[in-house]
Amino acid sequence: MKVIKNQSLPDKLACEGSLKNVIDALYVLNGKWKLALILSLVQSSKRFNELQHEVVGISSKVLAKELKDLELNDFIKRQVYPTTPVSIIYEATNYSETLKDVLAGLSAWGKQHREKVKESMRKQY
Amino acid sequence: MKVIKNQSLPDKLACEGSLKNVIDALYVLNGKWKLALILSLVQSSKRFNELQHEVVGISSKVLAKELKDLELNDFIKRQVYPTTPVSIIYEATNYSETLKDVLAGLSAWGKQHREKVKESMRKQY
Repeated sequence: MKVIKNQSLPDKLACEGSLKNVIDALYVLNGKWKLALILSLVQSSKRFNELQHEVVGISSKVLAKELKDLELNDFIKRQVYPTTPVSIIYEATNYSETLKDVLAGLSAWGKQHREKVKESMRKQY
Repeated sequence: MKVIKNQSLPDKLACEGSLKNVIDALYVLNGKWKLALILSLVQSSKRFNELQHEVVGISSKVLAKELKDLELNDFIKRQVYPTTPVSIIYEATNYSETLKDVLAGLSAWGKQHREKVKESMRKQY
């Protein structure tokens, strides 16, 4: 049952390779938090506690794991500054900036999705 | 430690609301498979087995759960056709099409990311 039902799709999405690309992208960006953490650090470098405060809903255990993953994959750097006590600051790398288009698309979509959810709740009650 | 370090960011990404938008988007699109499944069904409607074959790496248990989630959130429809035996076909809804920009961005990024990984493996060996 392989019927291309939407002829208005951009060619790049309709082609076979695009599904493989998206699977590969999600493999490294998996989970509910990585893109949000990358955006927060692209906006400005932050300490662990600042990140936890800004990315609402993440536990400290999960945050620590996600930061390690992101560092391993070259999206962020953990900088240790020799102040007293030492300051540990997380910074986005240049590679994180390659995700700007994805983040902008996701932000625009998240905004309209929130409006849609609000609208449907208004109708329900 | 709040320093805006990248002045070239588009305004819409730099603003406070964008992080909230991204967190909201990831809340509903969480996990490693949902966007890939949506893309596969936007390309064409499919049976369960066809989906599992195309989205390489997903188990049937996880696929069943993800399809239920996607149906609840209005991204896909499960159509039952009264053939013998009955045909169950999963179809993308119009709402899935609102994710086209996100999917196109993710596809482009996934492609360049794969190139980058290949390149760094070539250097290593």
